[in-house]
Amino acid sequence: MTKVRALVLERQHELALREIDLPLEVGPGMVKIAIHTVGVCGSDVHYYTHGRIGPFVVNAPMVLGHEAAGVVSEVGAGVAHLQVGDRVCMEPGVPDPNSRASRLGMYNVDPAVQFWATPPVHGVLTAEVVHPANYTFKLPDHVSFAEGAMVEPFAVGMQAAAKARITPGDTAVVLGAGPIGTMVALAALAGGCARVIVADLAQPKLDIAGQYQGVITVNIRDRDVVEAVSELTEGWGADVVFECSGSPHAWKTIMDLPRPGGAIVVVGLPVEPVAVDIAGASVKELRIENVFRYAHQYDRAIALIGSGKVDLKPLISETFAFEDAKAAFDRAVEARPSDVKLQIRVAQ
Amino acid sequence: MTKVRALVLERQHELALREIDLPLEVGPGMVKIAIHTVGVCGSDVHYYTHGRIGPFVVNAPMVLGHEAAGVVSEVGAGVAHLQVGDRVCMEPGVPDPNSRASRLGMYNVDPAVQFWATPPVHGVLTAEVVHPANYTFKLPDHVSFAEGAMVEPFAVGMQAAAKARITPGDTAVVLGAGPIGTMVALAALAGGCARVIVADLAQPKLDIAGQYQGVITVNIRDRDVVEAVSELTEGWGADVVFECSGSPHAWKTIMDLPRPGGAIVVVGLPVEPVAVDIAGASVKELRIENVFRYAHQYDRAIALIGSGKVDLKPLISETFAFEDAKAAFDRAVEARPSDVKLQIRVAQ
Amino acid sequence: MTKVRALVLERQHELALREIDLPLEVGPGMVKIAIHTVGVCGSDVHYYTHGRIGPFVVNAPMVLGHEAAGVVSEVGAGVAHLQVGDRVCMEPGVPDPNSRASRLGMYNVDPAVQFWATPPVHGVLTAEVVHPANYTFKLPDHVSFAEGAMVEPFAVGMQAAAKARITPGDTAVVLGAGPIGTMVALAALAGGCARVIVADLAQPKLDIAGQYQGVITVNIRDRDVVEAVSELTEGWGADVVFECSGSPHAWKTIMDLPRPGGAIVVVGLPVEPVAVDIAGASVKELRIENVFRYAHQYDRAIALIGSGKVDLKPLISETFAFEDAKAAFDRAVEARPSDVKLQIRVAQ
Amino acid sequence: MTKVRALVLERQHELALREIDLPLEVGPGMVKIAIHTVGVCGSDVHYYTHGRIGPFVVNAPMVLGHEAAGVVSEVGAGVAHLQVGDRVCMEPGVPDPNSRASRLGMYNVDPAVQFWATPPVHGVLTAEVVHPANYTFKLPDHVSFAEGAMVEPFAVGMQAAAKARITPGDTAVVLGAGPIGTMVALAALAGGCARVIVADLAQPKLDIAGQYQGVITVNIRDRDVVEAVSELTEGWGADVVFECSGSPHAWKTIMDLPRPGGAIVVVGLPVEPVAVDIAGASVKELRIENVFRYAHQYDRAIALIGSGKVDLKPLISETFAFEDAKAAFDRAVEARPSDVKLQIRVAQ
Repeated sequence: MTKVRALVLERQHELALREIDLPLEVGPGMVKIAIHTVGVCGSDVHYYTHGRIGPFVVNAPMVLGHEAAGVVSEVGAGVAHLQVGDRVCMEPGVPDPNSRASRLGMYNVDPAVQFWATPPVHGVLTAEVVHPANYTFKLPDHVSFAEGAMVEPFAVGMQAAAKARITPGDTAVVLGAGPIGTMVALAALAGGCARVIVADLAQPKLDIAGQYQGVITVNIRDRDVVEAVSELTEGWGADVVFECSGSPHAWKTIMDLPRPGGAIVVVGLPVEPVAVDIAGASVKELRIENVFRYAHQYDRAIALIGSGKVDLKPLISETFAFEDAKAAFDRAVEARPSDVKLQIRVAQ
Repeated sequence: MTKVRALVLERQHELALREIDLPLEVGPGMVKIAIHTVGVCGSDVHYYTHGRIGPFVVNAPMVLGHEAAGVVSEVGAGVAHLQVGDRVCMEPGVPDPNSRASRLGMYNVDPAVQFWATPPVHGVLTAEVVHPANYTFKLPDHVSFAEGAMVEPFAVGMQAAAKARITPGDTAVVLGAGPIGTMVALAALAGGCARVIVADLAQPKLDIAGQYQGVITVNIRDRDVVEAVSELTEGWGADVVFECSGSPHAWKTIMDLPRPGGAIVVVGLPVEPVAVDIAGASVKELRIENVFRYAHQYDRAIALIGSGKVDLKPLISETFAFEDAKAAFDRAVEARPSDVKLQIRVAQ
Repeated sequence: MTKVRALVLERQHELALREIDLPLEVGPGMVKIAIHTVGVCGSDVHYYTHGRIGPFVVNAPMVLGHEAAGVVSEVGAGVAHLQVGDRVCMEPGVPDPNSRASRLGMYNVDPAVQFWATPPVHGVLTAEVVHPANYTFKLPDHVSFAEGAMVEPFAVGMQAAAKARITPGDTAVVLGAGPIGTMVALAALAGGCARVIVADLAQPKLDIAGQYQGVITVNIRDRDVVEAVSELTEGWGADVVFECSGSPHAWKTIMDLPRPGGAIVVVGLPVEPVAVDIAGASVKELRIENVFRYAHQYDRAIALIGSGKVDLKPLISETFAFEDAKAAFDRAVEARPSDVKLQIRVAQ
Repeated sequence: MTKVRALVLERQHELALREIDLPLEVGPGMVKIAIHTVGVCGSDVHYYTHGRIGPFVVNAPMVLGHEAAGVVSEVGAGVAHLQVGDRVCMEPGVPDPNSRASRLGMYNVDPAVQFWATPPVHGVLTAEVVHPANYTFKLPDHVSFAEGAMVEPFAVGMQAAAKARITPGDTAVVLGAGPIGTMVALAALAGGCARVIVADLAQPKLDIAGQYQGVITVNIRDRDVVEAVSELTEGWGADVVFECSGSPHAWKTIMDLPRPGGAIVVVGLPVEPVAVDIAGASVKELRIENVFRYAHQYDRAIALIGSGKVDLKPLISETFAFEDAKAAFDRAVEARPSDVKLQIRVAQ
């Protein structure tokens, strides 16, 4: 075990920037990474404010953070594609490669996945971490660490776009313009949609999404989204609807949004079961896809960022020094509608 | 208009076997068919007992019946693939070939579909009918009229099996062993499943489904279906779950049935919105498909029946003479659990 | 029949701009369009220089041109989505809506398709044309007629991109940087690819394709394309390879380009059978898709152009007045490597 | 190393039943299996007669055999789903679980696969073998060892059927009625086809395939297969064509067999590149799939055999005692058209 400085959630409501013992031995197939930048995710904040997410309870001090980029500082035996000094970002979830789900190529639904900053697994708001090389990805030279730390949330958007099976030129709807809704909108556009209609009731969020070419915003305080989609699609409906609000209200009229034979991709998770209009889904023969994190999306996400097709920089609202990590979390708790992503720069 | 003898639903609760005026002119692309056998469907019975199904209200006398087979008696101009004397069965729904949905190959979700015995369109419990040749299909010599009249409900099973995108050797679950559940089970087996676990609480229905090789029955009065599926799949879950009960209860634990990455195909329609466990669907990344009637399934259904892979004959519970058509409906109202399909032989 | 001025191919090698009798009556479901701009396609040029393409022989004077945009000047009965004055572009191929292929949604493979400027069907290098409203598409206000006339060749690229079933973030290779290769590259990028490696031996063609973000060019005079792709994909191979050269040489090493489990989409057609390395395709379990024209791509293509995701304007090399139509064809015969698309402005 | 009795290919043309040293230590995740029955495969025979298959050369004595079933005799640490005494069959190819292809779920195209009886890897015509538990599958009680040893070749058929993406009720063509063609035909029928047209010129082979319900045989000495398929499909063509002959001749007219939008699945491998009619594939927009061994098919194959949907017993032509293993190979070299599968019973 090695002592390293880290942002530790001691218990609900209590954060400390302090030294902690972490295992940093580099076994075969592993690499050590000096952390540079870490994004603050809603789940990190939720552990801070609630001490738990569903069955995952913070029973012992836990390092937060799972959206990270850094520099390879040591390379284990048998690792071919990485070298010391490589700038990288990392997938926070590591599955059992021998599980049935992993072998089928769906490691994200392997129940044995170990995920950073999900009790009892430590996160990476810390100086260094050891990680499997297979889940560590090189960044192109012109992609910054800040963008590298955005790959994790963008990968969720990529998974949603992949599940949608977009046909080039599709029209999509995204319900909810929070960080994930915005990521999904960008992934859908990069993934083949001609236009994405983003609906929310917070105008500052819509203004951020609306900066991107191809995004049409609908403020649902002013206008019925069903009506807006119908008008924009000449009564036919959208090819794909991404539900990213997690709100039960969204489900009341969601079946009126897709075209006959269209798809709904569910990204936002309502806590309780939701009333769903099965008959409405039936009469249009809708396909409903569900998304859980992501699998095999990091290289694709990096390729889109690296080629300039996706620009995530406008979504980084503010960057905090590591010493101010607690302030970053308190700002995140405020949930300002104009904040998309707050990041913490761990490296000096 | 021509006077023909028909089973007419005068209004809710009132059936009459009488003459009625029907248009029987054979235009281009059309054929005239002498009806031989017609199956009694739950929707026919529902119009009889309730006078309506949702927005479709019986406001004027309407001929019932839409599951039909017969003999071509006249052929319109431009029809190449049918001749007088051909034994045939017919799709009851005729779309607008120029609608957007039809052109995309999904004519079943064309809102302009005209469907037999759906107000105000007459059905075919009558001596003769004129129908588009494109929706009229030849029966192989060794397939009986009775089997021909079973193609319509079997086509629903075929559509469900096609939507499931079965991989050969899949394990499926069918919730609900009514006529449609049984049709779905047979289509799933013929369509590539190794085995189908059929669950219901009516033992006579299970006994009928259980006659078929590859069907495993679970009486949910005796045994929890989640437990049974888990045991039969060594804890992994089913590849596909077909919801054919239409019961909101089925939705309570349905997410526990499929394997990670599996599919749910919804065939049974609950009238009201149903509480759905979105989080349960998400964590397994399930795909949920919805089925509305069928498109392009008649030729495939006939091919499977004709090649001997599907035997629907054991599902014909009793055949009534045309003179006893009203008795057939009253028997259908009884809803005996041992009755799968009642048919009426219109031809002498 | 009405007399209209048109560019007529009298016979091989002989063009005339003269009056010709054309049927211009507007039946139900049809619209009349005043032609504005028409692109010159390689097939038009081939009829001019060779008098035939395969089995299609110019035996009588035929109007050339099938890439067209214009203004609706008359609307037939039953047409709802178009009005006089609408700026539109048109699909040149009209299938039989009742054919088996059309009903399945694949009207492009209907052998009965009637296609403009394919003997004996006249093309549209003429003042006016009557066309089915279902194959006539409105242009957004900010999309020019010149861009409208580019939709036809771009639709071929869209069909190829759709057949590829791109997963967002894919890397593609396009063999051949002629007009179709360039269209395919743009459709692949708009359709979800992160980057497209375009290979050719004509540097001027590569320079045009290379203007677009996401395109990487490889001049195969200087560099082996297999080596280049291997290096750019770290030895893994491309997700999709689009064969757009039509050259038998391309097939010699094509199996070395895709990754295991990747796809080849064949757009370019060699005249004679080509030696194909089946064992090479097998060991990677490649999927090989073939493209024939397009189906259901016009609205998608227009959506991508309209939303700004695809800019075809740099591909219009020169525009000729209708009076200079013959000069346009003679320039096309030159086949300058710096010419992508020549257009003729029919309207004054 | 442990001494065990095995059938050893000393060098080309020379077989010996003798003792050989094999590593039989059971590591974590491994099981030891007492071999019961092994099938003789064409590749085993080819090493015997030619001493090599392409780049794989027999440079040292090698145990033959890779189609095997047996009984678990020892279980390594961490193995949960198998116990001593379990009757099992085994996948002969073991990939690197950390390769990129394996992680994507396509372990069959992992170039690092270690495959039994492929130099320099020993096969299993021996008393005992140690194998990863993940590639060892339990047989249902009523499935014999002989059937268990047929799972390997049947899995090739399953992979072909899966790649075909059969829609229930499809009509397929199988070119070539050798062991693999017959396996493909059975998998296609079990996997959803209504009927399979099997074409060959050896009548004894056709007679064996023709025993199965749903198989229609065409002897191409007597009848043109294109004509036969056209007649059986009323001029439309087959939904799927499986090329299992490996003969360049098959490619001459293969494009005339599928329907517009249909598929060709290539299982048979011609040694040299083959002349392919690309234009013929294009005009029908065919999809061409390639098959390399199989992935994730063993459990599915066993499920279909176990449920009675697939009966492989009629394909076991003769069973030899282990002492007569050399005779089995000499009989295989004869290549009698009435022999489908020869097996060797290793257990006493």
